[in-house]
Amino acid sequence: MLLTPKDNIFITDSRYIEAVNSYLTLDQEIAAFDLRGLSKYDYESYFAGCNSVGFEEGYVTYEMYKSYLITYRVDNLVETEHLIEINRFVKDEEEIDNCKKACLITDKAFEHIKEYIRPGQTEKEIALELERYMKMNGAESLAFDTIVASGPNSSMPHAIPTDRKIEEKDIIQFDFGCKVNGYCSDFSRVLFIGEITDEEEKVYQFVLKEYNFISERLKDGINIKETLKEAEEHYKEENYELLHSFGHNLGLDIHEEPVLSTRYETKLKKNMLLTVEPGVYIPGKFGIRIEDTILINKDGSNSLTKSAKAITVLKYNNF
Amino acid sequence: MLLTPKDNIFITDSRYIEAVNSYLTLDQEIAAFDLRGLSKYDYESYFAGCNSVGFEEGYVTYEMYKSYLITYRVDNLVETEHLIEINRFVKDEEEIDNCKKACLITDKAFEHIKEYIRPGQTEKEIALELERYMKMNGAESLAFDTIVASGPNSSMPHAIPTDRKIEEKDIIQFDFGCKVNGYCSDFSRVLFIGEITDEEEKVYQFVLKEYNFISERLKDGINIKETLKEAEEHYKEENYELLHSFGHNLGLDIHEEPVLSTRYETKLKKNMLLTVEPGVYIPGKFGIRIEDTILINKDGSNSLTKSAKAITVLKYNNF
Repeated sequence: MLLTPKDNIFITDSRYIEAVNSYLTLDQEIAAFDLRGLSKYDYESYFAGCNSVGFEEGYVTYEMYKSYLITYRVDNLVETEHLIEINRFVKDEEEIDNCKKACLITDKAFEHIKEYIRPGQTEKEIALELERYMKMNGAESLAFDTIVASGPNSSMPHAIPTDRKIEEKDIIQFDFGCKVNGYCSDFSRVLFIGEITDEEEKVYQFVLKEYNFISERLKDGINIKETLKEAEEHYKEENYELLHSFGHNLGLDIHEEPVLSTRYETKLKKNMLLTVEPGVYIPGKFGIRIEDTILINKDGSNSLTKSAKAITVLKYNNF
Repeated sequence: MLLTPKDNIFITDSRYIEAVNSYLTLDQEIAAFDLRGLSKYDYESYFAGCNSVGFEEGYVTYEMYKSYLITYRVDNLVETEHLIEINRFVKDEEEIDNCKKACLITDKAFEHIKEYIRPGQTEKEIALELERYMKMNGAESLAFDTIVASGPNSSMPHAIPTDRKIEEKDIIQFDFGCKVNGYCSDFSRVLFIGEITDEEEKVYQFVLKEYNFISERLKDGINIKETLKEAEEHYKEENYELLHSFGHNLGLDIHEEPVLSTRYETKLKKNMLLTVEPGVYIPGKFGIRIEDTILINKDGSNSLTKSAKAITVLKYNNF
C-alpha cells in the first residue's frame, strides 16, 4: 500500500485484484493496481515531491527493503518507527465493537465445548470442534492456532493439539480466539476431568488470585511496570517461574504493543484492548493459565470475555 | 538458529523451551537456549573467529536486521542469497515420502467430500469438513487456507469460504492441502452440481488439456521458460487472461522456488516436487483450476495426488 500526497495505491497481484476491489471500503480514496501493470514511470510519478518515503520496518524483510530501493528508485527510504502500530494502541468504538463480537462467539464456543467434551476424545477432535463452532457462528477466521492441551501437555504454554485422548483425572488447558471484521479475541480456561488434585487446586487458586490482582489494578493512566512489579513478586514468593508476560494489547493482530510486562513503562489508556493471562507451568506435570480479553476504562477495566473462572470439574459416569 | 563452527544454537523464548527440546531430532548437535538467558558475552563467543555472519534476508525483517547488528555485535552481517532455499529445490527420499503421505490424505479428503456434500450447505461448512477430515486422518496441519468457492465466487483464484449456500447448477472450486512431518500437498479440483453449462465445459476441457500439455513435458533437465512458452500461447489463442503461474515448487513451504512461469529459466531436476495448476477465470461468472502435486523424474513426471480429473457432475434428487 502506497500513501502519497496525491494517490493511495493498493498494489496486489492479478490473483487478488477482483477480491481486493470487492473488499475495499474506501474505494473513493484507494485504487487497486496489478503489480505487473506498474512501470518505473508510475513509481516516479507517485513519489515525485516526496522528501522521504517511510516503510514499515517490522513487516518488510531485508530482501524486500533492498528490492524497494530498486523498484521505487527512492534513495530516501526511512523507517516509520512504529508510527502505525502506535496509532493502533487505543481503539475506536467500531474496533471495540468488533472485538466484543469476537469475545461473545468465544464465550459461546467454550460453553458449547463443555457440553461436547467426552473422555476418549482427542485434543485434536476437541480443538476442531471449537474451531468449527466459532466459524459456523459468526467468526470469519481463527485469531491464532487453537490450543487444547491435556494432562502433562498443558505444561507447554503453546502446545499443539495432539492425538492424546482425554482421560480421567486430566486437566485440559484451552486457549483460543476468533476474528470478527479483522478484530481478535483471546481467551484461556482450564477444565478438570473427574477430579482435581490438591496441587492443581493450589496452583489454580494462585493463578486466579493473580488474575484478579492484575485486572483490578488496570485503568487509564497507570504505568505498566509499576503496576506489575508486585504481581511478579507473588511468583517469586511461591517459587513459580514466570514463563511469559501477564498479557498484551490486541486488535487486528493477536499480539500488539504494549505488553503487560515490567519491561514496559508505557501508560495504559482508555479504550486499549488487553489480555490478562497469568499462568503457572510445572514442567512434565501440568500448567494452568486463565485469560480474558479486557477493555481499559477511565476508572477500571471490564472483561469482554465473560465465562466463569470458578474451578470447573466435569464428572462422567462412564469411568 | 545460529550455526557456527563451534556450536549450533536454537534460540527461543521461555514459552517454547520444553516443546523445542521435545521436538529436536538432532539433539546431540543442537542446543536450545532461552533468548533472555543469553548475554552479549555468549554471542561474542559464538561468533569469535567468524569472518562473516550470514542471515536469511527473505525471512528477516529490516527491524530484526537492525537489532541483530546490536544484539550480536557483528559488523560483517551478509545476505545468504537464498543458500538454504536453493538447497531445498531438490528433495530427498524422506521428504518425498512425507509429501506422498500428505497427498494421499488429500485425495482421501476429496473422495470423502464428494459423499458429504449436499445442496444447501455453505462453502464454510464444506471447507470445515475437509479440514476436519484431513486433521483426523493423519494431517498435522493445513498446508494453507482451504478454498471452497462456489458459483461466481470461483472466479477469484484465492477466494475465502463464505456463507454462500451451494445451489443447483453451481460450480464448486476446491483448492486445499495438508502437511505431514512439515511437508505440504497442494491440490485443486472442480465439481459441478446438477448440471454443467456449455461454457463451463469448454473452459474445463481447455484447462484439462493445458494440464496434460504441461505435465507431459515436465522432466529432469528441461528449461522452464522454453517449455511453458507454448502453454502461454494457448491462452492467447483463446483470449483467456493468465492470472497466475502454471505451478510452483513446494516442500516445507507451500510456495518454494522455482515457479512454473516463463519468468524462470531454471532447469528442472529429478526429485523436485512441483504443482501443475493451470486455471481460467471469467470475472463475475466462474473459474476453473485443475491442480496436482507432481514429482519430477529422469524421463517424465508422476502425479502424487491421484484423484480423477474427468468432469464430475453430482446429481441430487431433492431439487
